[in-house]
Amino acid sequence: MNKNQLVAAIRERKNYLCVGLDTDVNKLPKHLKNEKDGVVHFNKAIIDATKDFCVSYKINTAFYESRGLQGWKEMEETLQYIPDTHFTIADAKRGDIGNTSAQYAKTFFETLPFDSVTVAPYMGEDSIRPFLEYENKMTIVLGLTSNKGAQDFEMQKIGQEHLYEKVLKIVSGWGSPDNLMFVVGATQATELSNIRNIIPNHFLLVPGVGAQGGSLSEVSKYGKNEEIGLLINSSRGIIYADSSESFADVAAQEAKKLQEEMALYI
Amino acid sequence: MNKNQLVAAIRERKNYLCVGLDTDVNKLPKHLKNEKDGVVHFNKAIIDATKDFCVSYKINTAFYESRGLQGWKEMEETLQYIPDTHFTIADAKRGDIGNTSAQYAKTFFETLPFDSVTVAPYMGEDSIRPFLEYENKMTIVLGLTSNKGAQDFEMQKIGQEHLYEKVLKIVSGWGSPDNLMFVVGATQATELSNIRNIIPNHFLLVPGVGAQGGSLSEVSKYGKNEEIGLLINSSRGIIYADSSESFADVAAQEAKKLQEEMALYI
Repeated sequence: MNKNQLVAAIRERKNYLCVGLDTDVNKLPKHLKNEKDGVVHFNKAIIDATKDFCVSYKINTAFYESRGLQGWKEMEETLQYIPDTHFTIADAKRGDIGNTSAQYAKTFFETLPFDSVTVAPYMGEDSIRPFLEYENKMTIVLGLTSNKGAQDFEMQKIGQEHLYEKVLKIVSGWGSPDNLMFVVGATQATELSNIRNIIPNHFLLVPGVGAQGGSLSEVSKYGKNEEIGLLINSSRGIIYADSSESFADVAAQEAKKLQEEMALYI
Repeated sequence: MNKNQLVAAIRERKNYLCVGLDTDVNKLPKHLKNEKDGVVHFNKAIIDATKDFCVSYKINTAFYESRGLQGWKEMEETLQYIPDTHFTIADAKRGDIGNTSAQYAKTFFETLPFDSVTVAPYMGEDSIRPFLEYENKMTIVLGLTSNKGAQDFEMQKIGQEHLYEKVLKIVSGWGSPDNLMFVVGATQATELSNIRNIIPNHFLLVPGVGAQGGSLSEVSKYGKNEEIGLLINSSRGIIYADSSESFADVAAQEAKKLQEEMALYI
């Protein structure tokens, strides 16, 4: 799915919700914890239950890598199960010198055919360029993140601007809104109108509605553009909303709540 | 292997060479290219041939991930084959919010029991802290990298300092020279004495002697401290020095040349 198809899906299904599959084997419902394919079983149930209320799924690669070969197999199976009607994100935060970033781009655009991947900006243009060379794929660069550590470097002042503003300005020149998106932390919603001045046309991936604490109405108000231009992620607030055998039904209810609120803002 | 054991190995074997296993299946010698376990076969031959001339091996995870499950299996097998006498580095450049970084730390310190892992600083303290919590492991944070893109953000001025200097100053306060190392690009050797003023006691991992263009004598002169405090990496200059059936012998010769030059500087 490319950017135009994502915009169409948002308009048709009246939401811009991304469900984050940060599936931690230790947090599985008891009846799945000791099952051999518990993680895949869990993810499939979450996808079946939430797909009518979201337009995207984000796989946090760390939770799969930490289980080695078994985890990578689960990541593959989960990605295969996500329907073509949904925009897929590898939340991998990779980035290295050019020839190495080319290998990461191959990993997440070919070997695992995601629609997009998150990338760290620290090492500059040649670390991001190999991702942008893929047609019909989106590269999602970290701008301002939602964690406390954002204060340490992202919020440092370079002249009149914060580092993250410099990142948005400079990186947005390396691609177009068709192949480039930015991560913008929802807990900093007051910064969103300023961010929209810098990058009016790019999609923003907003983590942190829910467990990380952002407000959906504020993010929608200040972050929306003419194409909507938002993907709002919720991970723990949906997938771990309930830990009984009814976890998927409760996840569906949580996703539906967010979808219905988003419909009001579209 | 922890930091004190690394220092002892450097003194005993009279070198601070790290051999980078950025093994690209397309660059294997012809006779290995179509072999099922060609990458592992190649890595084992390189390790056997070079282990007397180096103290460390660095596995660039991108080159393994890009081949999916097969690649992760090859990474596991390669890591297992590296002798205990050598310091192992996962060159993975990870970093995310705390609960996710904890999963990455688990990946590279437990599931794949490396001695150290490279980490990106952009997201700040809580993205690095989970790695530092492991005893007898080293976290290697990106300071100044050797690529052209280092100019884009790392070299931006924050007040009187470059961003990378700020990173070295702030991050060095989060750990000690026993659990924290920094990546410092060799092509910027003139910056090394300045860097040594900021972090006199930390180990520096210097990529880019060889294909990335740094000078070994200059890096050694300006980068060395009382514990030596240097690991200098060479990847392509050693592992792809020859593409015939004699590749391992030629790799050994290249590593030996570097070892002998390093012995002069210790």
